[in-house]
Amino acid sequence: MPIVVQNIARANPATIDALGAAGVATVHEAQGRRGCLAAQMRPIYRGARIAGSAVTISAPPGDNWMLHVAIEQLQPGDILVLAPTSPCDNGYFGDLLATSAVARGCRGLVIDAGVRDVADLEQMGFPVWSRAISAQGTVKETPGSVNVPIVCAGQAIEAGDVIVADDDGVVVVRSAEAEEVLKAAQKRLNAEETKRARLASGELGLDIYDMRGRLAEKGLKYV
Amino acid sequence: MPIVVQNIARANPATIDALGAAGVATVHEAQGRRGCLAAQMRPIYRGARIAGSAVTISAPPGDNWMLHVAIEQLQPGDILVLAPTSPCDNGYFGDLLATSAVARGCRGLVIDAGVRDVADLEQMGFPVWSRAISAQGTVKETPGSVNVPIVCAGQAIEAGDVIVADDDGVVVVRSAEAEEVLKAAQKRLNAEETKRARLASGELGLDIYDMRGRLAEKGLKYV
Amino acid sequence: MPIVVQNIARANPATIDALGAAGVATVHEAQGRRGCLAAQMRPIYRGARIAGSAVTISAPPGDNWMLHVAIEQLQPGDILVLAPTSPCDNGYFGDLLATSAVARGCRGLVIDAGVRDVADLEQMGFPVWSRAISAQGTVKETPGSVNVPIVCAGQAIEAGDVIVADDDGVVVVRSAEAEEVLKAAQKRLNAEETKRARLASGELGLDIYDMRGRLAEKGLKYV
Amino acid sequence: MPIVVQNIARANPATIDALGAAGVATVHEAQGRRGCLAAQMRPIYRGARIAGSAVTISAPPGDNWMLHVAIEQLQPGDILVLAPTSPCDNGYFGDLLATSAVARGCRGLVIDAGVRDVADLEQMGFPVWSRAISAQGTVKETPGSVNVPIVCAGQAIEAGDVIVADDDGVVVVRSAEAEEVLKAAQKRLNAEETKRARLASGELGLDIYDMRGRLAEKGLKYV
Amino acid sequence: MPIVVQNIARANPATIDALGAAGVATVHEAQGRRGCLAAQMRPIYRGARIAGSAVTISAPPGDNWMLHVAIEQLQPGDILVLAPTSPCDNGYFGDLLATSAVARGCRGLVIDAGVRDVADLEQMGFPVWSRAISAQGTVKETPGSVNVPIVCAGQAIEAGDVIVADDDGVVVVRSAEAEEVLKAAQKRLNAEETKRARLASGELGLDIYDMRGRLAEKGLKYV
Amino acid sequence: MPIVVQNIARANPATIDALGAAGVATVHEAQGRRGCLAAQMRPIYRGARIAGSAVTISAPPGDNWMLHVAIEQLQPGDILVLAPTSPCDNGYFGDLLATSAVARGCRGLVIDAGVRDVADLEQMGFPVWSRAISAQGTVKETPGSVNVPIVCAGQAIEAGDVIVADDDGVVVVRSAEAEEVLKAAQKRLNAEETKRARLASGELGLDIYDMRGRLAEKGLKYV
Repeated sequence: MPIVVQNIARANPATIDALGAAGVATVHEAQGRRGCLAAQMRPIYRGARIAGSAVTISAPPGDNWMLHVAIEQLQPGDILVLAPTSPCDNGYFGDLLATSAVARGCRGLVIDAGVRDVADLEQMGFPVWSRAISAQGTVKETPGSVNVPIVCAGQAIEAGDVIVADDDGVVVVRSAEAEEVLKAAQKRLNAEETKRARLASGELGLDIYDMRGRLAEKGLKYV
Repeated sequence: MPIVVQNIARANPATIDALGAAGVATVHEAQGRRGCLAAQMRPIYRGARIAGSAVTISAPPGDNWMLHVAIEQLQPGDILVLAPTSPCDNGYFGDLLATSAVARGCRGLVIDAGVRDVADLEQMGFPVWSRAISAQGTVKETPGSVNVPIVCAGQAIEAGDVIVADDDGVVVVRSAEAEEVLKAAQKRLNAEETKRARLASGELGLDIYDMRGRLAEKGLKYV
Repeated sequence: MPIVVQNIARANPATIDALGAAGVATVHEAQGRRGCLAAQMRPIYRGARIAGSAVTISAPPGDNWMLHVAIEQLQPGDILVLAPTSPCDNGYFGDLLATSAVARGCRGLVIDAGVRDVADLEQMGFPVWSRAISAQGTVKETPGSVNVPIVCAGQAIEAGDVIVADDDGVVVVRSAEAEEVLKAAQKRLNAEETKRARLASGELGLDIYDMRGRLAEKGLKYV
Repeated sequence: MPIVVQNIARANPATIDALGAAGVATVHEAQGRRGCLAAQMRPIYRGARIAGSAVTISAPPGDNWMLHVAIEQLQPGDILVLAPTSPCDNGYFGDLLATSAVARGCRGLVIDAGVRDVADLEQMGFPVWSRAISAQGTVKETPGSVNVPIVCAGQAIEAGDVIVADDDGVVVVRSAEAEEVLKAAQKRLNAEETKRARLASGELGLDIYDMRGRLAEKGLKYV
Repeated sequence: MPIVVQNIARANPATIDALGAAGVATVHEAQGRRGCLAAQMRPIYRGARIAGSAVTISAPPGDNWMLHVAIEQLQPGDILVLAPTSPCDNGYFGDLLATSAVARGCRGLVIDAGVRDVADLEQMGFPVWSRAISAQGTVKETPGSVNVPIVCAGQAIEAGDVIVADDDGVVVVRSAEAEEVLKAAQKRLNAEETKRARLASGELGLDIYDMRGRLAEKGLKYV
Repeated sequence: MPIVVQNIARANPATIDALGAAGVATVHEAQGRRGCLAAQMRPIYRGARIAGSAVTISAPPGDNWMLHVAIEQLQPGDILVLAPTSPCDNGYFGDLLATSAVARGCRGLVIDAGVRDVADLEQMGFPVWSRAISAQGTVKETPGSVNVPIVCAGQAIEAGDVIVADDDGVVVVRSAEAEEVLKAAQKRLNAEETKRARLASGELGLDIYDMRGRLAEKGLKYV
C-alpha cells in the first residue's frame, strides 16, 4: 500500500509567487473563505512568507522515514507537507533534513506534528509551520506514502496544490484553481487600498459598507 | 435583543495610565488576586503594555459584524474587548479594522477568539491579545451587542472597566475600584523595590518574610 | 510528609556544560530517545540554552511557598524544576524570585505551571521553560517538598539530575549517566558534521543511509 | 476580602420547577440563546434533570474549604455552583459533602472543577455536572467567598439565579427574568409539538419554515 | 458557491450492512489502518452500531441551516455527516431534526461539532457520534453545501462513502472500495476466531505470531 | 536498550485486595494525597473496581508490540500499565489481547493511550482505564521495555507497584508502602462512617471539624 507518486502537476510558478505575495488571509478570502489549515499550525519564527507546490507525505506516528523519500521528489519551489496518520507531536524534522531539503530547492515545511532544531532552522532561514516544537525523536521502521492525497490540519491537500504560508498560518489552493484565485485576490487587494485610506481618515465601516439599514432590519437597537 | 449602549462611564484617564504603568501582575495582586483573564490570552507580539477603557462586544461565532458597530462607539484611549457567544478561533479582526480603530484613538484589542494580519498589526504597533491567530474569515449576518456585560476568557467585564494588558496577559479592574486598586498597586511597587535590593544582595525570602517558623509549624522537615 | 533534602549529588560541572553545548535534541537522541519533557514546555523567550543540576520542587496547585524554600538549597549552576501536584497554570514565579535565584547562582527555571513578569525575566536574561505565562498569583499556605523525586511534564526527575534546555524544549539526564550520554552526544555531533556536508551538496539521505533496499523490502512502490 | 452573603433572593419555586421540566436546550433558546455553560460541563451520570437556585462559591485552586461554608447557606431546592479562581480539576466534592448537602435539601452540584466518589453519588441520586472526575484531593487553607457573583464555565452567575441542568448540560437564568423566560419556553414547547408531528409525517423543515426562497436568495444552487 | 449535489452514488446496500456487522476496528484494519475519524468523535450513548451512505454537509460555525437542506437529500439507509468550516461545539442537531431525519430513513448522524436533546435521541434510538454535547443553539443565516467533499474529524469524506460507526468510533470507506474492504474484513474476522480460541486457551501471541526471533533481532533482552 | 525484567516483587495479595476494597479516593488520601493518575484516565465502562500489581510497559507511539511481550510476564492478579514514550491516542489494545491477558489471570489495563473493541471488553468484564477510545490500529515494528519504571498519566510507576482503579480514576501505591497505606485507609474509612451519620442528620462540617474559628482568623466575614 505505501507508494510514491513521482509525477505531479504543479501550478504556474509566477502564479504561485503572486499568491505568496498576496498572503494567507487574502488568498483564503479570495477563494470563498476556504482552505485555511487549523489555527494550531504556527510558524517557528515570525516574518516568513512563502508559497510553493505541495509535496505531500503521509507518515505513521513517530516515524519520519518518508521525509527522506519525499526529499528526492522535491523540485525547486516545492514545499513539504506532512500529515501523521494519527495525532503525534514528535520532532520529525530538524537541521539535517532541512539542509537536504534546501539543497533540492525546497521553500519550507508544513507539518501537523512536531519539528526540532528550531534555532538552527531560523538561522538557515528555513521556515516551518507546525503544531508543536519538540526534540522527541522518531524511528524509521514503517513506510508511508508520498504525493498521495492527505488531510493536514483539517484540510484535504493533494500533491501539487499551492501552499501559501505566513504569520497568519497556512492556506491551500487547488492547483487547477490557482489562476482564478489569484485574480480574485488581486481584485481584493486593490479594493482594500481604497478602503484602508478611507478608514484611516476616520470614515466608518458602517458607512463605507452601508450597513446601518441592514443592522436595523435585523433588530439592532441603540440605547 | 441585540443592543448598542452608547453612553458608558469611564475611569479617570490618569488613573488608567498609571494602572497601565504598574502592569498586569501588580494590578492583579493589588486587587486581591482577582481579574486575570485566562492564560490562553496571548499578545500577538511582545513588548506592548496598554491600559484603557473597555468597549465590550458580544458576537456570534464566526461573525464579526459588531466590530464595525463597536468602532463607532470608541473614544480615544479605549480598548475593544470581544467575547464570542460560543468558543470560536476565527480571525475576526485584521489590518483594515485596526486602521479604523486607530483612527478613533483605540489602544488595542482583547479578543477571546482569533485575529489575523498579525504582521501588519505589529508593524502598525496595534497590540492584540487573543486566544488564536487565524486567517479564517467571518461573515456579517447576525447582530450581537456592544457595551453590554460580557464574559471574556473567564472574567466578567463591563463596558468602561479598565483593561490592563502586557506580556503577562490581561487583567480587568472595575472602573469604580480603579483609584483604590491603583493606590494598592503603587504601595506594592514601592515595597517591591526594597525587597528586590535585599534579594539581589543574597538575603533569602525565607528570612525577609520570616517564613521559617510557620513552615516548621506546618510540618516541613529538613533532612 | 513535606521535606527538604539538603544534600544532593550533582554531576561534574564540565560534563554538565558540555551537555548544554550539545543541546536538547542531540542529548535526547544520545540517550536513546529518552528524557524529553512534554512539548507544552516552551521557553519564555528564544535563544537561551542552559544546562545545570536540578533542584526539584513538588508544590500544591496555586501555592508557591516552596520556591522560597528551594532557593536556599541552590548552588551556583543549579536549575529550579517545579512540578505542581495537580495541573495548574498559575504564575508561581516572577522577577523578585528570579532576583533571589540569580543571587544564588541559579541558571534558570523549568516549571510545569505558569510564570509571570516575563518581560522583566527576559531583560534580566533569566530563562524559564513553562507550560503557561500567567499573571495569576499564588498563596503561601501549604508546604510541599524540595529535592524529592518528581514527575515534571511527563518525565521522572530526581534532585541532581542534569537538565538541558534550549529552544527545542527540555531534556533530563540521570546524573549517573551524564558522562556516558555526553560521549554518545559528542560522537553523534561529529557524525552529523560529515552528513551535513554531504546533504548540503545534494546527496540524498536515501543513499547516505542506504535505505532503498529496506524500503523496497517493506513494500514501498514508486508509481 | 472573603465573604459569605447570607441573604439571597430566590425565584419562585413553581417557576424554577417548570423551567426544570422544560429542560436546558429549550430554556436556553427561550432566553435568546444565552446562558449555556461551556460544553466541558458533563453530568457524572445520565438521566438527571434538575432546577434550583444557585448558591455560588468562589474557591481557590485545590482548596474545598468553602464548600463546608456554603452548605450552611443552603435552603431546600438550592444547587451548589462552584468556580475555582483559576483552572483546576481536583476532586473538590465527594460522598460526605453530598450527604451533608442532601441533609440541607440540596438538589445537586455544578462545578467547573473535579468531583469524586461518583459511584456513591450516582447510588445516592445526587447529580453533579463537572469538568472532570478526579480522586485528587484538596486542602482547607484559604477562604474564598459564598454567594458572590462568579464566572462558572464561561457564564456569569449570581447567587439566587436559576440553574437548570440535564443531559445536555447547564443553563443559567437570571432570577428576575425567570417568569418571562418560562413563558417563552412554554410557548416554544407548544410550537414544537405541532412541528414534531409534521416532521414525523415526512414534511420537510424547508417547507414548514418556508426556507427555500431565502436560501435561493443567498445563492444556494442545486446541481 | 453554496451548492447541493442531488445525485450521489451509493455502495451496495448488502455490502454496507455487512461492513456495519464487521464493526469499526475490523473495517479500519481491513483497509490498511486507514479511514478512522479522530478519537474525539464519541457516541452519545453506548451500544449502537450502524453503517450507511454519507450525505455530507459543510456548514458555517454556529449555523445549522444546511441540516434542513440535507434532510431532503436523504434516502433510506443514509447517514448525515456534518463538518463545520471552522471548529465549533454548538448543538447543531436535536430531537426535531432527528424526527425529520428518521422520517426519511436516516440511520444516524456523525458531526464534528455538538448535538443536543441527547436524552430524547437515545430514547428514539437515533445514534449520534459528535465531538461535543451542547445545548448552545445555532442560527440559520449562511448557506453551506450538501454532498460536497468535506473533511470531518481529520478524514476526507465524499458523498456516498460508506460510514461505519460503533462504540469504538467512526470509519469511512470509499464507496468504490467497499466490496474489496468487506472481503478483507471478513477474512480478518475468520482469522480472529481461530486466534481467539488459541489465546483463550493460554497460548501466547508471541508464539502464535512467531515474534520471538524478530524481537531478539531488534535487540530485546530478557533480564 | 529494550529490556524485559522478568522477576518483580509484588505486594501481599490480601493487602492488594483490601486496598481495592477501599477505593481510589480513600487510598489516595490515605497516602497523603499522592499517587493519582491524571484525570484524563477514564474507565471504558462504569462500575468496575480493581486492584493488582503493575506489569509496566514502555511502548513507542503507535506500536503495540510490547503488549504481547508483557502478557507472558503476567501472573494472576496483575494489571497491565502502559505508557507511550510520546503522546498517542491509538487503540493499542482490543478483545484479542484481552482474551490473552484474561487467560493469564490479568485483572485489567491502565493505558495512557487508546483502546478499542470496548463493547467486547465490557461484555467480557475486562476493565480498562485509558485516555482515549480509538479504533486506530498500531504496528509491531519497534521494541519497548517491560517492567521498567515508567511515567503513566503523570505518575511514576514501577513494576510491582499496587494499582487501584475505579470510577474515580487510578491511583498507584508503592509496593513497599502498601501495608502502611492500607492501615491509614482503613482508619480513614472507619472515621468516615461516623462522620457520614452525623452529616446525614444535618450536623454541619463547619461544626464537626470545628472550622469556624480558623475561618474567622483567616478573615472570612459574614454579611
